[in-house]
Amino acid sequence: MGARDRGAGDLLSVNELALLARIEALLGSPGGRVLVGPGDDAAVVRAGGVAVTSIDTVVDGVHFELATHSPGDVGHKALAVALSDLAAMGAAPGEAYVSLALPGSVGEEQAVELVDAMRTLAAATGTTIAGGDVVGSPVLTVSVTVTGWADSVERLVRRGGSRPGDLVGVTGQLGGAGAGLMILQGAEPGDLAPDEREGLLRRHRRPEPRLAEGAALAATGVSAMIDVSDGIATDAGHLADRGGVGIELRLAELPLTPGVDAVARHARRDPAELAASAGDDYELLFTAPADRRSAVESAVPAVTWLGEVRAGAGLVLVGAGGAAVDLRGFEHTR
Amino acid sequence: MGARDRGAGDLLSVNELALLARIEALLGSPGGRVLVGPGDDAAVVRAGGVAVTSIDTVVDGVHFELATHSPGDVGHKALAVALSDLAAMGAAPGEAYVSLALPGSVGEEQAVELVDAMRTLAAATGTTIAGGDVVGSPVLTVSVTVTGWADSVERLVRRGGSRPGDLVGVTGQLGGAGAGLMILQGAEPGDLAPDEREGLLRRHRRPEPRLAEGAALAATGVSAMIDVSDGIATDAGHLADRGGVGIELRLAELPLTPGVDAVARHARRDPAELAASAGDDYELLFTAPADRRSAVESAVPAVTWLGEVRAGAGLVLVGAGGAAVDLRGFEHTR
Repeated sequence: MGARDRGAGDLLSVNELALLARIEALLGSPGGRVLVGPGDDAAVVRAGGVAVTSIDTVVDGVHFELATHSPGDVGHKALAVALSDLAAMGAAPGEAYVSLALPGSVGEEQAVELVDAMRTLAAATGTTIAGGDVVGSPVLTVSVTVTGWADSVERLVRRGGSRPGDLVGVTGQLGGAGAGLMILQGAEPGDLAPDEREGLLRRHRRPEPRLAEGAALAATGVSAMIDVSDGIATDAGHLADRGGVGIELRLAELPLTPGVDAVARHARRDPAELAASAGDDYELLFTAPADRRSAVESAVPAVTWLGEVRAGAGLVLVGAGGAAVDLRGFEHTR
Repeated sequence: MGARDRGAGDLLSVNELALLARIEALLGSPGGRVLVGPGDDAAVVRAGGVAVTSIDTVVDGVHFELATHSPGDVGHKALAVALSDLAAMGAAPGEAYVSLALPGSVGEEQAVELVDAMRTLAAATGTTIAGGDVVGSPVLTVSVTVTGWADSVERLVRRGGSRPGDLVGVTGQLGGAGAGLMILQGAEPGDLAPDEREGLLRRHRRPEPRLAEGAALAATGVSAMIDVSDGIATDAGHLADRGGVGIELRLAELPLTPGVDAVARHARRDPAELAASAGDDYELLFTAPADRRSAVESAVPAVTWLGEVRAGAGLVLVGAGGAAVDLRGFEHTR
């Protein structure tokens, strides 16, 4: 942990050295492979095999709104979206490095709440927060770099490995984060069940990286994988492009988070199209050779088969009536 | 490289997929230990020994001003300040992961210019840009995570190893970045030599991480090291605190960047006090057992000895007259 902009008082209301001391105390002494943790120029970690690394940044007003997200929601989400990239490779999480850019409107208690939620998710996923920095900024911005580990690159799953004849599957349920965002924006049906409402909001505010599922899918020999961050219509397109193949998905097969149907109909949108185009679900979309089907179902019961890989190029979405449907990726509303 | 906020058009004027494609083409195929580079969910790097990792963020209006810094200056500085932390550990640089948060006012050409300057510094330092992301933001913010490598943690230099009797040294020259900032803010003497002016501005805009010096100092057995990011008065205090020792520095011994003297006197400030309190020089401050003095001087000729480590606690700055001087760390002006 370090602080480089001492005195940027109009941007950073907290005493950053006091905040860093509280954060270091909160994080405690890192263990495991972390040999030098927060407090030095850099963290030092015992290495071996291959390191798998991703950086992600979330910005107030773009990826969340402080008006409707608690500081804990922000910390959780910033780490979750980074870890989701490790899940999509099938890597075991290792360390996280956190950069907090804090405006004057975020006080020390809120910053600690943000880090504490991150620490809770880190502990739940076997991740160690090994370093970071705090700077001033006009807008709350959290960058998280995560490093995971694997024995070799052959154990990992890349985006480009799909082959014609492979099946396309997805973990969990879709559309929940998008419907949760719609509720926050006022598009809420009057008869939505309270537990469904809470579930949708939680999918939006506290996404869960599918680390166990990613590791299990990698072990069964899936051919390609990506996390659903931009909406399945966009992310399946990435698999098709990187693999040099075509992908056909059946919208009627999409597993919908409970409540998505009600929220979509209230907004006069097709539930499956909402679930296909809305982002931020952080489920795992993958392709697998047909002979791996039962192995996949045994390893990860919460899998739904959605379509097939074809020779050719591009993504085709097949609607309930059997005709191709054109969708755009989810667009953040501001 | 990835992009998660498709459609945040008021924040991000560029087509981020087109920008990512240009960045990937600019970076080319990573080599060396990078097995999977930009374009997948995460980068994969062959690992061994220990990984040394630091994250740093620079923000428009806090760490630079787009009004007086080119996009290339911003890219260079963002990578340089991160690499400087590796230099301070004595680690060899490996990979960099870059998060660009771009406002609508930054176009595709400027973003490419930023990354291109980063790529130039990466190539000059043996660093591979192995991944990153692009998001929209109200303010230009660049987060860089760097990972370096060493055979073992014992080969690295930490902040807390100073012992009473050690000598205190610093690489290069001080005060140049601070005086360069003062020039940009209008505090410029009429008789400043053009080459000195350019030199001071360059120290502010294009700091150079002292990677070769850091590795050489680590090999000679220095006892503690830190990079001078907040001003030597602040950073020497960190060495004293982490080592549980006192440090005495003689201000009259400070090696001043040419032109600092003139800029300081023009602003009616003491040149040595300016050089001790101004940040962003990114030289290396270290302590070494007295018997390592000649080994250090052979390994890194551009070293100046500034003081000694004492039993006790805290930092004492001794002025030219022999009396203790009180300084505050450099404060960014906004």
